[in-house]
Amino acid sequence: MDSDRKAIVVLLSGGLDSSTALAIAKEEGFDLYALSVDYGQRHKSELDASRRIATHLVVKEHSIIKMDLREFGGSALTDDISVPKGRSVREMQKGIPETYVPARNTILLSLALAWAEVLGINDISTGVNAVDYSGYPDCRPEYIAAFQEMANLATKSAVEGKKIKIHTPLINLSKAEIIKRGTSLGVDYSLTVSCYDASTLGQACGECDSCLLRAAGFMEAGVNDSTMYVPPVARL
Amino acid sequence: MDSDRKAIVVLLSGGLDSSTALAIAKEEGFDLYALSVDYGQRHKSELDASRRIATHLVVKEHSIIKMDLREFGGSALTDDISVPKGRSVREMQKGIPETYVPARNTILLSLALAWAEVLGINDISTGVNAVDYSGYPDCRPEYIAAFQEMANLATKSAVEGKKIKIHTPLINLSKAEIIKRGTSLGVDYSLTVSCYDASTLGQACGECDSCLLRAAGFMEAGVNDSTMYVPPVARL
Repeated sequence: MDSDRKAIVVLLSGGLDSSTALAIAKEEGFDLYALSVDYGQRHKSELDASRRIATHLVVKEHSIIKMDLREFGGSALTDDISVPKGRSVREMQKGIPETYVPARNTILLSLALAWAEVLGINDISTGVNAVDYSGYPDCRPEYIAAFQEMANLATKSAVEGKKIKIHTPLINLSKAEIIKRGTSLGVDYSLTVSCYDASTLGQACGECDSCLLRAAGFMEAGVNDSTMYVPPVARL
Repeated sequence: MDSDRKAIVVLLSGGLDSSTALAIAKEEGFDLYALSVDYGQRHKSELDASRRIATHLVVKEHSIIKMDLREFGGSALTDDISVPKGRSVREMQKGIPETYVPARNTILLSLALAWAEVLGINDISTGVNAVDYSGYPDCRPEYIAAFQEMANLATKSAVEGKKIKIHTPLINLSKAEIIKRGTSLGVDYSLTVSCYDASTLGQACGECDSCLLRAAGFMEAGVNDSTMYVPPVARL
């Protein structure tokens, strides 16, 4: 494969952030290789959303890797701990939430690194965000820098002098800024699912941390919130 | 879970090296949590070997994570590229072999990190080896050091001050030294499978790089080679 072409592996969960990261990479002129991971998450509708977004933003290829992290347990997103609802931003920022998946970004970036190497690609993008990061340690800039350093010692291409670059276009943006950026790039956010507890149709609960941060972001950005919510009557 | 107990997650492929690393951790007094990954490798008999060794060395728990890396392709171990046979050590050391699996150790160590965090364990062991490493970049000490540094920024436990340590007890040993060490610890190597092209019964081909390095190791160590080989008549 031609290693001088401009191509990038983008981690795509199907949520608002990763969809925006994908749109940014597209605008930068990269050929897009979207990577999603079916890690036994409870919110499977995210994976459906990733397929819609991959089509919407015209990726070259979309890989979905199946991997069962439920074997480990330990998180509300893969285990049967309940997703916290209706919390204030202050409550969310107190410590690391139950929805933290152990070493998730390390596992996801490792898979992206493997696929990038097979494809002969040196660029990887992730929608991690340190501002609204809800206390996830693996969303911080120092973590990303350390991963990039490790990646440059890990692979055949790195040994041969091709430097891996981890792009984190959203790392210093607020949710509102992310939404403004994506909207200006034409991202249709109604196709995305951020909710930790979405219905099988991909409708958002409107009450988990992720829904609340997202809704506040649309409001602050002054952008119409096109999220598909569970109809109020279904919440009774 | 009591985070002060002495416990370790050991990556266990079922081969000679990782089985020896497991025996060393046992001798050091750790409670053993063996982690194997079914990543779509052609040599499935390795996984059977990992089960035998986990029983032989009395681990507390053995997890086998299923993950399909064949989606990526790119290696003789997961794809249908043929495994090189009958090469000299000099040929093996020329560059990185076809059997290199992209980012394999990074993916394996990431999974170990995730499980260690769920279990409240700070120690991880891998049987990587820089001497007979056949040109794998992710077996070098500088790679392991970079992984450890990244891991210490990646997890909730690290943020809370529990330092992750990656043990590499074999990193500076020759194959012969590894075999002598394991033999002194009572490892039954007839239970292990190193072959890249083993039969479904786990019998070794005797001709791939891994078989040749292993056989030479037994000879150099002066230890009886208890490997189960494919009967000569079956090779005709």
